[in-house]
Amino acid sequence: MMKPKVHVPTLLLDRNKCLANIRRMADKAEQNGLIFRPHFKTHQSSNIGRWFRQAGVDKITVSSMRMAEYFANDHWLDITVAFPVNIREMDLINRLAAYIQLNLLVEHHETVQFLDRHLRHPVEVFIKIDVGTHRTGIDPSDTDAISRIMDRIAASKTIKLAGFLAHAGHTYKARGREAVQEVHESYLPMLRDLKARYAGEFPHVLLSVGDTPSCSLAEGFEGVDEIRPGNFVFYDVMQVGIGACRVEDVAVAMACPVVATHPERGEIVVYGGGIHFSKDRLKEDDGQENYGWMVEWTNAGWALPKEQPMFLKALSQEHGIVQATPEFAARIKHGDILGFLPIHSCMTADLMKHYQTLDGEYIEMMKYV
Amino acid sequence: MMKPKVHVPTLLLDRNKCLANIRRMADKAEQNGLIFRPHFKTHQSSNIGRWFRQAGVDKITVSSMRMAEYFANDHWLDITVAFPVNIREMDLINRLAAYIQLNLLVEHHETVQFLDRHLRHPVEVFIKIDVGTHRTGIDPSDTDAISRIMDRIAASKTIKLAGFLAHAGHTYKARGREAVQEVHESYLPMLRDLKARYAGEFPHVLLSVGDTPSCSLAEGFEGVDEIRPGNFVFYDVMQVGIGACRVEDVAVAMACPVVATHPERGEIVVYGGGIHFSKDRLKEDDGQENYGWMVEWTNAGWALPKEQPMFLKALSQEHGIVQATPEFAARIKHGDILGFLPIHSCMTADLMKHYQTLDGEYIEMMKYV
Repeated sequence: MMKPKVHVPTLLLDRNKCLANIRRMADKAEQNGLIFRPHFKTHQSSNIGRWFRQAGVDKITVSSMRMAEYFANDHWLDITVAFPVNIREMDLINRLAAYIQLNLLVEHHETVQFLDRHLRHPVEVFIKIDVGTHRTGIDPSDTDAISRIMDRIAASKTIKLAGFLAHAGHTYKARGREAVQEVHESYLPMLRDLKARYAGEFPHVLLSVGDTPSCSLAEGFEGVDEIRPGNFVFYDVMQVGIGACRVEDVAVAMACPVVATHPERGEIVVYGGGIHFSKDRLKEDDGQENYGWMVEWTNAGWALPKEQPMFLKALSQEHGIVQATPEFAARIKHGDILGFLPIHSCMTADLMKHYQTLDGEYIEMMKYV
Repeated sequence: MMKPKVHVPTLLLDRNKCLANIRRMADKAEQNGLIFRPHFKTHQSSNIGRWFRQAGVDKITVSSMRMAEYFANDHWLDITVAFPVNIREMDLINRLAAYIQLNLLVEHHETVQFLDRHLRHPVEVFIKIDVGTHRTGIDPSDTDAISRIMDRIAASKTIKLAGFLAHAGHTYKARGREAVQEVHESYLPMLRDLKARYAGEFPHVLLSVGDTPSCSLAEGFEGVDEIRPGNFVFYDVMQVGIGACRVEDVAVAMACPVVATHPERGEIVVYGGGIHFSKDRLKEDDGQENYGWMVEWTNAGWALPKEQPMFLKALSQEHGIVQATPEFAARIKHGDILGFLPIHSCMTADLMKHYQTLDGEYIEMMKYV
């Protein structure tokens, strides 16, 4: 490739890296006897969805009803919405449940009651279990609340229990394989206990887990039936920091035109700001904020510079400020295109609303307004 | 209004507050004998643009060429792109310069040379002066660099010098009228000196300034010809913190459905995350992060709760976690709609891609993909 042909901030996609990421995770699921139900909230793209289909995937996860509708329109017929049911979207739930296998997430018996009263077509539900992230879900020790939901499900003709679903978001605070493995092993027993507890009445419940760090790094999935990772399709700087991937596995990079240089302070100003990258950032050891690592263009795509690392130190709405060396900043010209690995690819992709492959192909994304 | 009719995260717009914000700023410009060239990057809406037109505005500022094109399509014929020229967009520059008064921003003589060589229609340029924010622009003491640009402009037949343009972004770090006034007074003399220095050769150059805190709070605009504030059209929690507006002036609020409650830890989970609000945040005095203040619905629209303040303490892609009181969290039901003032309305509006007025009208925004 060497230099990408772009005029404005553009999210480049290395299809080979992306396909390798998909392949690797599909293989891991298969080797562990797990259902692979990838989360599509990261790429939000029907094109990329088809790459998963070619890898044998026929069940997916999404994070909103509108995303479920977008993928249902592309003939995905078994979709889990891994977000607590928003009862305000009952019409859309019924519209989709009429023709796809729709799996919803609940954490309160009143939601089950509401669904039972308003559903016109069958759905399955997962009960969300909080395995330590404390964002959503029921504490696994709160078997009163869990039993109450299960009783309500057992009494319903339209709602079937799919299983227990957990998202160990706290693996994002772990660093390295051992730390992630430790989190992984800390919560699996709770889920296995739940499954065993209700096995008499509900013998077919699934255990579904699925953050990208665990699915990438952890070994041992005893009792688990399904994984739902999403970010691994692209990975990003955050995942490199966790150790979930190598920097070479990151499959997306922003390409941004240079609009000003300030060699005296080693800074380069690019067209590419918070409305392109998102404001997700990392704090470096010295307290400096990092909104993206700079990469250099290579024949194959991009790579980290061999010398000193350079990065985006600040973003405003449309501006990005690169902290570079004075020599590099003096060498760069207005109109040059610089590349950056995003800190959090899910957020960057959501903002950019499409991809451009290394050979210039346009890859569409869902757009809802 | 009392309870907004929404099903998914929705950006509500209080038209009366917005019109009052526009009126107040237009009046201030008029009283100070200033050209009012509002920045449209905050609202990005042709509908709202027309409210400005009704207030007598006929010159605007935007932050990208694509935004210039969007507003040119709605018959705005005098547009300043307050972002350093991206020479990769020369085709679009020529397309717009053919039929509107296009004003560009430069900070290097080579950019002027490039423009002169490739322009097919006349444009005006502002020279960007760095008055202390150190994002873009030339140090006002670097008169060699400035003179070099001016010589290059004087030699061009298609490029005319409009003036000097500054953005005192460092007022965002000030708190209160006096602190903002101090920043304001610290940089105006530099600009007046520049104007005087070149008055012989360029007698008609303008001084253009324009951050929302200065334009809202500062007094005394001697030597200034034009202001370009943008955020004031909505304001937000950040501007309340600076003291640039009252909380009652904030003209937008997010309406988000409740999807889970955790009264035991005083938390409410709403449908509304980083892809709706953006990840811009404030740090409270106790170190707690704040992604938006909760408001209550009133007959007229919304207001801060009278008791304890409540706020969004965390956002993930689609989830927002409200830090509430245990009593409030216990009172709230799934499907209720909670309101939040955004931390940074420019970023939230950019993500939401449309507005809904308090009487349910759809207000469009530019969409580029």
